Amino acid sequence: MSQVRIIEVGLRDGLQNEKTMLSVGTRLELARLLAEAGSRDLEIGAFVSPQWVPQMAGSRELILQVLEERELKSSPFRRTELSALVPNRRGLDDALSTGIERVAIFASATEAFSKKNINCSVKESLVRYADVVSEARRHKKTVRGYLSMCFGCPFEGKVAPAKVVRLAEKLIEMGCDEVSIGDTIGIADPKQVKALIRSLISAVGRRHLAMHFHDTRGTALANILASLDLGITSFDTSIGGLGGCPYAPAATGNVATEDVVYMLHRMGVKTGLKLDKLIEANHFATTKMGRELSSKVGRAGLPRLIPV
Amino acid sequence: MSQVRIIEVGLRDGLQNEKTMLSVGTRLELARLLAEAGSRDLEIGAFVSPQWVPQMAGSRELILQVLEERELKSSPFRRTELSALVPNRRGLDDALSTGIERVAIFASATEAFSKKNINCSVKESLVRYADVVSEARRHKKTVRGYLSMCFGCPFEGKVAPAKVVRLAEKLIEMGCDEVSIGDTIGIADPKQVKALIRSLISAVGRRHLAMHFHDTRGTALANILASLDLGITSFDTSIGGLGGCPYAPAATGNVATEDVVYMLHRMGVKTGLKLDKLIEANHFATTKMGRELSSKVGRAGLPRLIPV
Repeated sequence: MSQVRIIEVGLRDGLQNEKTMLSVGTRLELARLLAEAGSRDLEIGAFVSPQWVPQMAGSRELILQVLEERELKSSPFRRTELSALVPNRRGLDDALSTGIERVAIFASATEAFSKKNINCSVKESLVRYADVVSEARRHKKTVRGYLSMCFGCPFEGKVAPAKVVRLAEKLIEMGCDEVSIGDTIGIADPKQVKALIRSLISAVGRRHLAMHFHDTRGTALANILASLDLGITSFDTSIGGLGGCPYAPAATGNVATEDVVYMLHRMGVKTGLKLDKLIEANHFATTKMGRELSSKVGRAGLPRLIPV
Repeated sequence: MSQVRIIEVGLRDGLQNEKTMLSVGTRLELARLLAEAGSRDLEIGAFVSPQWVPQMAGSRELILQVLEERELKSSPFRRTELSALVPNRRGLDDALSTGIERVAIFASATEAFSKKNINCSVKESLVRYADVVSEARRHKKTVRGYLSMCFGCPFEGKVAPAKVVRLAEKLIEMGCDEVSIGDTIGIADPKQVKALIRSLISAVGRRHLAMHFHDTRGTALANILASLDLGITSFDTSIGGLGGCPYAPAATGNVATEDVVYMLHRMGVKTGLKLDKLIEANHFATTKMGRELSSKVGRAGLPRLIPV
């Protein structure tokens, strides 16, 4: 493995699980810092009701602003692609009207979480998403499908790998370019990760897979290492480890971008990201969130005499 | 890999890097909780000058107390072996006088850190330790040799693997039963870990090796996973992640026992430890330290519906 792709989800999955809400202006500034650090895949917002997810309010404005800045020759966004979450056809239409190039849908591997999170059964969600995805593809958009609770569910406990594989297949069949396999509550271990990835690769192939780990119990980097061992090259990460876990209120959330990049660079794996610039973005986010973020590299800083 | 051995170093390596000092009585209570959780290898103190390491003051009293309690039929310490750090012959004599069954010496893989930490060159330290180890073995004690800065040094930067291997060989030649290979500043990555372990196994064999990772930059569990892949079965851990890094003041330190045990148990690897009891020990330590500890499992708690 010589190069991996990092999908920055801090501005969406991270912030939507934080109590502190950032204004559009602050999110724009953070997006700029991430783009300056080399982020090429930026999930930047969600077209969901601000009543349900107030943290994502103003996503439209934010996206329009970035797309406008991206036209400027000196813009840090010149090589950055944006993605936004869309829960339904109306959200997609809103997203399409901005000109954004990628959209993402989110399904659950378990019935209980599907009901809780999007208020419908898994089957109902797939029917709805089939329409969203086909319309998005008609507009030549890239579509990512999130699949959450793939390694365990706070309501159902164990999740059968066969179920995850079947749903991943369905998402790809309906036209998703990529499925992001989520350990939403940060419960996975490397052995479980390898077993599931082997099944997924057999069913849908490597190139459609991204892994989305939370570091709730400290295992995220080990799980990424296990994934790398099997040739997975796309990982979702969140600057500073922004995010949390609604089912473990004191816990940390998404794996931190800078921790992942530190490990990968030290292993000689390229990411296209600049670690010192990521730490600047971390410091900005730390100030704006008003609390210490969970990234360990953010806390420790870079080693003085060893290049990363 | 079906079983690993966890060496609990929180009471020594952990506490000696904490600003908050715990009384002998509090350390005894923490030791009891760890023994109740199943700790069989407990590094419990150090025979060093309390002027230099005030956190370890009263180690003699603590050890005598545990050894006395261990005689009782109902004692949680019945199956726990104790170890203490000894810097020199005088420290060894003090340790021997308690009746403790294990001692540990500490050498550095780099000259600069050796000078800084123990005020002599690596060569001088080895001459001194040869005497300590031979005397300890004459008393039928088990001897562990710590080797610090094996993956990078805050003063010298990169550390040549050949140097680490040569020093590990020397420690074993002089009679150490085990060498603990330390990533003292938490800088290692899994690729580097595998490369060094391969060389170490060629030179001294697996059974003499323990790995000692700090989680300063979040990579400890990934490094343990890499070590497991090569058949390493002994790991040093610290309850709650007690400890720190003197060269990165805001950083976390030793990898947390409960985070390691969580990952291992979920992978089906046995440790002989009870995770719920470790979390009790974490809560006790958290209260006594008066700050949130760095263990992620400690913060998140155990999953409700998935057995660990």
